[in-house]
Amino acid sequence: MRGLYIGRFQPFHLGHKAVLKKILEEVNEVVVVMGSAQDSHTPQNPFTAGERLDMIYGALRDLRPRSYVIPLQDVDRNAIWVSHVVSMAPRFDLVYSNNPLTEDLFIEAGIQVRKPPMYRRDLYSGTIIRNLMLQGGDWRSLVPEEVAAVIDSIGGVKRLIHIARDDLK
Amino acid sequence: MRGLYIGRFQPFHLGHKAVLKKILEEVNEVVVVMGSAQDSHTPQNPFTAGERLDMIYGALRDLRPRSYVIPLQDVDRNAIWVSHVVSMAPRFDLVYSNNPLTEDLFIEAGIQVRKPPMYRRDLYSGTIIRNLMLQGGDWRSLVPEEVAAVIDSIGGVKRLIHIARDDLK
Amino acid sequence: MRGLYIGRFQPFHLGHKAVLKKILEEVNEVVVVMGSAQDSHTPQNPFTAGERLDMIYGALRDLRPRSYVIPLQDVDRNAIWVSHVVSMAPRFDLVYSNNPLTEDLFIEAGIQVRKPPMYRRDLYSGTIIRNLMLQGGDWRSLVPEEVAAVIDSIGGVKRLIHIARDDLK
Amino acid sequence: MRGLYIGRFQPFHLGHKAVLKKILEEVNEVVVVMGSAQDSHTPQNPFTAGERLDMIYGALRDLRPRSYVIPLQDVDRNAIWVSHVVSMAPRFDLVYSNNPLTEDLFIEAGIQVRKPPMYRRDLYSGTIIRNLMLQGGDWRSLVPEEVAAVIDSIGGVKRLIHIARDDLK
Amino acid sequence: MRGLYIGRFQPFHLGHKAVLKKILEEVNEVVVVMGSAQDSHTPQNPFTAGERLDMIYGALRDLRPRSYVIPLQDVDRNAIWVSHVVSMAPRFDLVYSNNPLTEDLFIEAGIQVRKPPMYRRDLYSGTIIRNLMLQGGDWRSLVPEEVAAVIDSIGGVKRLIHIARDDLK
Amino acid sequence: MRGLYIGRFQPFHLGHKAVLKKILEEVNEVVVVMGSAQDSHTPQNPFTAGERLDMIYGALRDLRPRSYVIPLQDVDRNAIWVSHVVSMAPRFDLVYSNNPLTEDLFIEAGIQVRKPPMYRRDLYSGTIIRNLMLQGGDWRSLVPEEVAAVIDSIGGVKRLIHIARDDLK
Repeated sequence: MRGLYIGRFQPFHLGHKAVLKKILEEVNEVVVVMGSAQDSHTPQNPFTAGERLDMIYGALRDLRPRSYVIPLQDVDRNAIWVSHVVSMAPRFDLVYSNNPLTEDLFIEAGIQVRKPPMYRRDLYSGTIIRNLMLQGGDWRSLVPEEVAAVIDSIGGVKRLIHIARDDLK
Repeated sequence: MRGLYIGRFQPFHLGHKAVLKKILEEVNEVVVVMGSAQDSHTPQNPFTAGERLDMIYGALRDLRPRSYVIPLQDVDRNAIWVSHVVSMAPRFDLVYSNNPLTEDLFIEAGIQVRKPPMYRRDLYSGTIIRNLMLQGGDWRSLVPEEVAAVIDSIGGVKRLIHIARDDLK
Repeated sequence: MRGLYIGRFQPFHLGHKAVLKKILEEVNEVVVVMGSAQDSHTPQNPFTAGERLDMIYGALRDLRPRSYVIPLQDVDRNAIWVSHVVSMAPRFDLVYSNNPLTEDLFIEAGIQVRKPPMYRRDLYSGTIIRNLMLQGGDWRSLVPEEVAAVIDSIGGVKRLIHIARDDLK
Repeated sequence: MRGLYIGRFQPFHLGHKAVLKKILEEVNEVVVVMGSAQDSHTPQNPFTAGERLDMIYGALRDLRPRSYVIPLQDVDRNAIWVSHVVSMAPRFDLVYSNNPLTEDLFIEAGIQVRKPPMYRRDLYSGTIIRNLMLQGGDWRSLVPEEVAAVIDSIGGVKRLIHIARDDLK
Repeated sequence: MRGLYIGRFQPFHLGHKAVLKKILEEVNEVVVVMGSAQDSHTPQNPFTAGERLDMIYGALRDLRPRSYVIPLQDVDRNAIWVSHVVSMAPRFDLVYSNNPLTEDLFIEAGIQVRKPPMYRRDLYSGTIIRNLMLQGGDWRSLVPEEVAAVIDSIGGVKRLIHIARDDLK
Repeated sequence: MRGLYIGRFQPFHLGHKAVLKKILEEVNEVVVVMGSAQDSHTPQNPFTAGERLDMIYGALRDLRPRSYVIPLQDVDRNAIWVSHVVSMAPRFDLVYSNNPLTEDLFIEAGIQVRKPPMYRRDLYSGTIIRNLMLQGGDWRSLVPEEVAAVIDSIGGVKRLIHIARDDLK
């Protein structure tokens, strides 16, 4: 059994990793689809697909034999989005998602959707982490250390602060 | 050191695998970029990105700790293609390519390009393999057995024969 | 004389039908252009182009000999939008529109624009109907029964409620 | 039962009409999908979507209560093409097609495909008709008179001859 | 030395002209890139690329031997935007920009960015000018007279007022 | 009176310049539209829009007060191409073109088209010049010296030879 797990991973955090570990108690393998691959350098999507891949490859090193990661560009048409995912992703048996639209689209396409195991969503969230970066807070404790290393190496916090200034105007 | 190796992999064959093994004697890790990810169901590009990923994941299982595979959609504008690759791929240090255009574009962008080690290109080629499929020849001996298994499971030879009929008209 | 009438028809309602009947007192035939054909599964655009066509075909059965319905994808460039419409629609003589931008673009292109006959816009509006769907109100009395039948057959109200939940977050 | 019949209709000819009449002996209603709607002013695709709609509306006047015509822009990605058609077309039960790729894509998507009744394909073909137009031959006897009327009203033969001159160079 | 100066110029105003004059004290030539060339007929982007070019050509007549103006369509992908600019613009040595995102993208691409000389940004701004147009205020004193002449000749104020009405709803 | 003159200018040559001079005997000003701006690094379109702008700016220095040059990306839809040109180009009164499709599209849009003065098309042609580059012939005598200088500075001949090698395979 292979599951599919979709996220933007801006950035990949400990909550994502915990959920993936729990998913791998239910299925043999998981395909991690990194969505909105074309977006970067915005307050909501600061990191490029390539940078996010480096974060995830680092963070999932121990899960690698059972996980596959692919970047996916958006298509901006809900009615064809599922067949876009199916054509770009390796074969999968079911989808893990909490997002109502994602659920709806896969169910309408006849694909099984399961709620992913929850893991402290009050604490681990991309929005919270990006806000901590903007405010000089402790975002490092919320991400795998390999993710922090990538963010440091690309000057990610400085980039986010810089870009957010533009957005405020 | 991380190398980048680009191909369409229609399908992934033993020549690709041999080259990747040789590349991994020169660099620690290799990023395999599967280009023209959006194409499928044509005589030159019969397989979807997802199907090709399944082929490559199977064929590279032993190389997995040191190889990363990503699908890449075309942008159809040569002048921005390198920055498309850079934004979508994990960080890399040099590119392996024999294709003059690819070489040219990376070199103009200031990125190092190296000739990949050759491996019997007279024998192992996507064109040859697709022609063998069309003519009922022995294509199986030219691809890793995991690739043949994926092609069989999706009825790939039948699809190619069917589609090529359309193309002949 | 053939008129052109443009809307998104999310969903087609009794106000649309009343206006079309009045237009057909002024012109012989009317081309109904269903805009934003590519959108679906959002709170403002819950239904696909195909579903909306089924609604309109049902609702206009009695007007069919004098009405033509075509779906139209957006082009997202105002300056070329009129020539997009002209190239995709059958020949027409004038446009019925209350929308300032639509009016402006057709007038700048030298095409006659007429105000469509009004019909209780306080009551019949897509926004009002979608809100009634979300709140469990009586939306059925505002649409032709053939439209309600299509919405029921595709589980349209459930879809809208589900998707709107995503939007609230 | 509703069938789907796809063509480019450059132009719509008596063969198309004969096939549609035979299809309507097998199913109650037929959805006529006019593909490559975005193309015009080329030797293979001389007429705009709007012009072709006018031809088809004229030619199918007697079949109108049981036929629906929609223009469809291409998506240029085979793997998502079926879900593009499904999202844009009204509900249908089966597809009539002789085209191997079309057949393949619908069958892979689990949609029934039937061979359309044949009708003198040696005689009635868009290619033959466009060549007759270019050579001053008798193309009029191969199309419904309503189609000839539209082609005359837009100066279609002159346009085709003019454009083909460009193509020869 | 050639500088690059980017703006949307909706419309081009005296502040832009003053800045360009100051830039031309620092560099020999300046490339004026008119961004979002595809946008028009919206409250924030009322004028087409062609109309804006006419404004700028008029306003820069005296600077022409040392200035080049090019329209540039957006690409909507920050990570490839710099290489889009580079491929479309004549060769340049440095960029003048106050926009944090623009600065960031060029700096990440290794291109020098300089703050443009400031010139009364409290007074001269596209937003202020468009608001004055909407409210019947004195916008003419804020733009070169050649710009006012173009806006008058196309009925620009009337267009903006008309379109803004749509936006209010 | 302002004329519009369209070309790809791969590269701009002495024939183009001679024609422009003759056009400027008929009209006061000319807008030079550099088409297919998005193409580069192919055997038919070796140079980027920016490189071609540098060539043309150099070659037209003496005509600058009366000529305007703009790059134009393709839209790939003939039926909307004229309104694309109109929206992107400064106001113009007539078009100079020998291309049957261009002529046809502008005439259908009600815009005047005039044959440009001919100037030794047997000698001065982009195809001939690119072939001379490939074969080591004397291409320099066919282009303005400013164009040759740009081509030399970017290594244009080497690029073309390199890319053409790819195309031969």
